[in-house]
Amino acid sequence: MAYNGAAYHGYQRQNNAYTIQQAVEESLSRLLSEKVAINGCSRTDAGVHAREYVFSFTTNNNIPPEGLILGANNILPGDIAFFSCEEVSEDFHARFDCKGKEYEYLIYNSKIKDPFYNKIAMRYWYRLDEKLLDDQAKAFIGNHDFKGFCSADCDKEDTRRTIYSFGVTREDRLVRFKVSGDGFLYNMVRIMVGTLLYINEGKIEKGAIPILLEQKDRTKGGVTVPPDGLYLNKVFY
Amino acid sequence: MAYNGAAYHGYQRQNNAYTIQQAVEESLSRLLSEKVAINGCSRTDAGVHAREYVFSFTTNNNIPPEGLILGANNILPGDIAFFSCEEVSEDFHARFDCKGKEYEYLIYNSKIKDPFYNKIAMRYWYRLDEKLLDDQAKAFIGNHDFKGFCSADCDKEDTRRTIYSFGVTREDRLVRFKVSGDGFLYNMVRIMVGTLLYINEGKIEKGAIPILLEQKDRTKGGVTVPPDGLYLNKVFY
Repeated sequence: MAYNGAAYHGYQRQNNAYTIQQAVEESLSRLLSEKVAINGCSRTDAGVHAREYVFSFTTNNNIPPEGLILGANNILPGDIAFFSCEEVSEDFHARFDCKGKEYEYLIYNSKIKDPFYNKIAMRYWYRLDEKLLDDQAKAFIGNHDFKGFCSADCDKEDTRRTIYSFGVTREDRLVRFKVSGDGFLYNMVRIMVGTLLYINEGKIEKGAIPILLEQKDRTKGGVTVPPDGLYLNKVFY
Repeated sequence: MAYNGAAYHGYQRQNNAYTIQQAVEESLSRLLSEKVAINGCSRTDAGVHAREYVFSFTTNNNIPPEGLILGANNILPGDIAFFSCEEVSEDFHARFDCKGKEYEYLIYNSKIKDPFYNKIAMRYWYRLDEKLLDDQAKAFIGNHDFKGFCSADCDKEDTRRTIYSFGVTREDRLVRFKVSGDGFLYNMVRIMVGTLLYINEGKIEKGAIPILLEQKDRTKGGVTVPPDGLYLNKVFY
């Protein structure tokens, strides 16, 4: 499925806040006339979006995949959409079987405020040098300890991850940071992008990323950019 | 200013609903430390958007136009943006001085639901023949009585209006209906577009628009398409 996360308190079910998981489970339960629980591929934070989010569920209903998509899309809110559905073996697990992910961070680079990019991109005022940042971002590629690039809330013991690719491109006022890897720590994409923005502003020196990776100190990097610009693009199996 | 109207109950102030006018007046009053009332160029319905909405107000504050734009954009919600401001003579009236308007109706033409076009375009499932509709739409151009193309709620005595241009173009899945004229009756753009969609579906015959204009009967035309796709594009003085 794809979703615009602006109106949701993240993916995962919560007691007192409306989430993507709750919206999907309620819609599927209504469509299939049975209680449905879904297994998602990843948590996403409040306000974060997804373009190809994968989840699985078990049903006794014989509805064909095509019918399920059509039916669910009519019941689901307008900011959540299903576009593909297939039967999988019972041991498929959307999260544990995941081999990697691609994220995009979208920046609206302009001094002009555009109300139609509200909550679906981060607005960045200063001129962004996408060629410089594309070059600097390459330093993240490879297997590194990303301890300095995750939130203090991160509870993972092993903070080594492999980044496969990291590119920065511009299309007019839109600048896209696209990064893929075998896994990402909590807030990792948002801190990597925030660090690149600090390099753009001269607050962190060019060429500093390998040093920051060595230092493993969150306080040396850039800000954690807001969730509005973050998209879970693809999940690999 | 421009605004994404999805979250608002239209432009005009209401007692029990949040509107664009209220959001703007509250922000300006806070910025200028005095009670500000604005004069808008047009009402827009709940859910309708604007790209170049013109309004005026009087202030005793000496803030320069540039400062006003910057300050207001920081206080205003993210879905409302100011981008131009100038001093005008005291007898300027955004509504009465208006010589014409341009509207756009935006259709997302696909069987695939896209959560990022939710509430900023109308989704239209059937293949839309933009060349046919561009040709058919030309019949609206000129001075006509649009009594058959306004809502029953329309309270105007004189229902004659002049349409200057009407074009339909496609860019991938996005189809744009762009229409300009000296004035528009209540729901007029949405009914003209709905009638063109009925022609696309064969529910109304090709070439029927001149006849519908003659008949002056709202029940003969197409549906009133939803507000989500409607943009007040420009206002002429």
